Order: sequence, then structure tokens, then C-alpha cells
Amino acid sequence: MSYARQLLDTYPASAGADTGVLAATIDALSDCAQACTADVDADLSEQNVAEMVTCIRLCLDCTDVCTATVGIISRPAACDANVTRPLLEACVASCKGCGDECERHARMHGHCRVCAEACRRCEQACREFLAALK
Amino acid sequence: MSYARQLLDTYPASAGADTGVLAATIDALSDCAQACTADVDADLSEQNVAEMVTCIRLCLDCTDVCTATVGIISRPAACDANVTRPLLEACVASCKGCGDECERHARMHGHCRVCAEACRRCEQACREFLAALK
Amino acid sequence: MSYARQLLDTYPASAGADTGVLAATIDALSDCAQACTADVDADLSEQNVAEMVTCIRLCLDCTDVCTATVGIISRPAACDANVTRPLLEACVASCKGCGDECERHARMHGHCRVCAEACRRCEQACREFLAALK
Amino acid sequence: MSYARQLLDTYPASAGADTGVLAATIDALSDCAQACTADVDADLSEQNVAEMVTCIRLCLDCTDVCTATVGIISRPAACDANVTRPLLEACVASCKGCGDECERHARMHGHCRVCAEACRRCEQACREFLAALK
Repeated sequence: MSYARQLLDTYPASAGADTGVLAATIDALSDCAQACTADVDADLSEQNVAEMVTCIRLCLDCTDVCTATVGIISRPAACDANVTRPLLEACVASCKGCGDECERHARMHGHCRVCAEACRRCEQACREFLAALK
Repeated sequence: MSYARQLLDTYPASAGADTGVLAATIDALSDCAQACTADVDADLSEQNVAEMVTCIRLCLDCTDVCTATVGIISRPAACDANVTRPLLEACVASCKGCGDECERHARMHGHCRVCAEACRRCEQACREFLAALK
Repeated sequence: MSYARQLLDTYPASAGADTGVLAATIDALSDCAQACTADVDADLSEQNVAEMVTCIRLCLDCTDVCTATVGIISRPAACDANVTRPLLEACVASCKGCGDECERHARMHGHCRVCAEACRRCEQACREFLAALK
Repeated sequence: MSYARQLLDTYPASAGADTGVLAATIDALSDCAQACTADVDADLSEQNVAEMVTCIRLCLDCTDVCTATVGIISRPAACDANVTRPLLEACVASCKGCGDECERHARMHGHCRVCAEACRRCEQACREFLAALK
């Protein structure tokens, strides 16, 4: 069981959300932030770096948005939907854009294939969490 | 002139936005992220820390959202409005909520007064940048 | 297999370190950063919040140091030991301090017990990675 | 007067350091983190992006280290020198490495010249703060 889940299971207040969905979203966001960071460095190591510029930018954005979101939803006690909802929407859009671009390079570059998977999983988790918020 | 402005003035591509508005938003976001971080620590130093819990949480959220946003808009070359717009909306909501709460403590705690000012300025800058995006 | 490991296995350059050790450190750092973030919020939900102030501060510091470190070591291609080594040392000290404090509250607060575990695992992983660096 | 300084001047506890030196270091770190983020995007916009790869990597590292450091020293109440000292050393090394590389591109690329200045100022501020810590 992930630490995120264990922390939610020992949380002294109500997390205001299904802890299974919340923990899965937290884990997907952490993974995606790290995968995008690593993919930037892998892209920079490719010979055709000029062709990877869009991918690098989208990965950098995705890391920033996922990092903020994992912070916010890891503090569920006083969740403000006016913050959380648009942030998750930004996350969905960022993961979608980054996942699409990584997929374009997936056959050539294994690291982009892995990063695309992390983005897809995170996009899906954020969509489910958003649906649960409403 | 801030480094943010100097970097935009030497930027090799189009920043896709008025550089004055963009630089002012970047500076306001950086300032707000730091002010909220410092205000958390100041709140934790108060004798009535139990009364500061809401303020602490809102400051933590505000730091995370502002930090992500300053990252995203500092890379203007390939700005995706589907990411930037909701992120700025999350920022406006977070700065509004945090600024309101800090203002409630402003008479008692000078650090909350300063933090409220940083939040108000950031909220206003993000609103102007959002208006310019549309 | 974690995404961190999968990305290292598809990395186009040499990671300059044993990929098993590196991936384990990355995963431990990500987990610890999130656990400390969540523990802050759980601490703030406790009735005896005044007694949790030291724990909150150490968790905030630990999140910041672990987040930076996971970023740096996720870009192994051009690792500069003059940066990585002191950063890992800061991480070890931060995880040690935070783990010790969390352990003091572990019997009372399950979330501190979980956070202490995440800190211990991360401290150990950083020590092993440091040893491998030398 | 910067918000960092105003917050230190209204801080309810001892900051454990000269507030002028501390505020200057905080401001230099915030500026450097943002300058490096912006320089990455500017580098990615250059035609000779393959020649900018080292600069991009050093800027990414410098942003991460400076962001962590500004967080840690913005919470001065319970500063642990075993964390702060190596973190500042990592910052000095990162700013030095990034500033040197940016300077190599300074004639060709104005944004690298600005970023080099931000790195130099931050390196110097961290050195002074380190000296004051001892």
C-alpha cells in the first residue's frame, strides 16, 4: 500500500473524498511529475534534440502543474473547490497535451513511451477525481 | 528593472503577451509564493497557533499554485491556454482566499498584513493577465 | 516496476550510476516529499496543534529538500557531484531530523508513524546513493 | 522594500540571522530560480538548441536547488544548520556552474547574459549567508 494511502487511512480529519480515489490520484501525480522531469533529460540526450523541443516544454509544464496539484490534494482537510477544480483541469489539459506529444515519439524513444503512459494514467486519475468532486 | 522583465526583453521568440503585463505577473507570483511560505513560519511562531491553522493551510496552497504558475508563464514560447487559463483561475481563487484570511489577522499580526498585500497584488496581476489572454 | 526505473532503463545516455540504486532513491524521495506534505496537513488537524509545530516545520523542510533532490537526480546525464553530494547530505540530515521528530509522535498519531517510515527509507536510500557516488 | 524584508521585520520570533542578509539572500534566490526557468525556455527557442543543452540542464538544476533553498530559509524559526549549510553549498555550486555556462553564451544570447547575472548575484548572496551562519 502506498504511503499516500497509508497517510489517508491514519488521517485525523475527514479527507472529504473517497480515500481510494484520492490516493490513486496522488500517486499518479507524483509519478507523472517525476516521469516528465526524467523525460526532459532523456530528450536532451537525444541526437535530434531540435525535434524534441516541444516535448521538453510540455514535460516541463506538466511537472510544474502535477507538483502543485499533488501538494494541494495532499492537504485535503480544507480543500477549496474553487482552487482544486481549475487546478485539476489544468492538470488534465497538461497531461493530455504532454501525453499526445510523447506518444508521437514513442516508437523512436522508449522514454517517451514510458512518459506517455505516466501522463495518460495521471490524466485519467485527475478526470476521475474531478468527477468525484462534483 | 526585474530579471523577469530583462529576460523577456532578450527573449528570442515572441512571448505571445504584453511583456510588461507578463513580467509584472511573474514578479507578483514569485513574491506571493515567498510571502506565503514566510507567513506559514510566522504563523507557526504565534502563541495562538490553533487560530492560525486556516491561514497556514491557505498559505501552503497559495505557495504551491503560485510556484507552478510562475514556472508555466516563465516559459511563454509554447503557452497552451487550456493549461494557463485554469491555472491562473486557480491562482486568483487561491490568492483571494489566502488574502481574505490573512486580512482577518492583519491587525494582530503584521506578517499577515504583509502577506495579504502580496496576495492582493498577485490576485490583481493574475486577473489582468487572464483578461489579456482572452 | 516504477516509472522511475522504466525511464532509466530506456535512457539514451549513461545514467552514471547503478540504475537500481538510482531508481530506488528517486522513488524514496518522491514518497517522502508527499508523505511529509500530507503529514503537515494531518498535524494541523490535531487538537494539540501547538505540540506539533516542530513536526510541521521539519516536514515542510523535508518536502522542499526531497523535491529538489528528486528533480536533480532525475536528470542524471550531466550530474555535478559538487551539487548532488551536498544536496543529498542536506536530504539525509532533513530526513533524519524529520524522522526522529515524527517517531516521537508515532504512538499518538498514526500519520506520524507512516511519515517516519517514509523519512527513514528516504534517509537510507540517500545514504546508499551517496556511498555509490564516492 | 521587498516582501521578504517586510515579513522578516514583522516576524514574531528571532530569525536567527541578520535580517538584511537573509532578505537579500531570499530575494536573490527567488530571482535566480525564475531567471533560470526563463532562460531554459529562451535556450529552447534558439536555432542552435543542440549547443544549449548543457546550459538548459544547469538552469534546470539551479532552479530546483534555489527553489528548495528559498523555502528553507524563508522558515528561519527552526533553522537546522545541518540542512541549511549543505543546501547553501549546493546552491553556491549550482549557481557557479550555471553562471559560468551562461556567461559562455552571453555575447550571443542576451538572455544568458541576464541569467548569468542572476546566478552570480545569487552565488554571492549564498556565500555571504553561509559565512554569517558559521
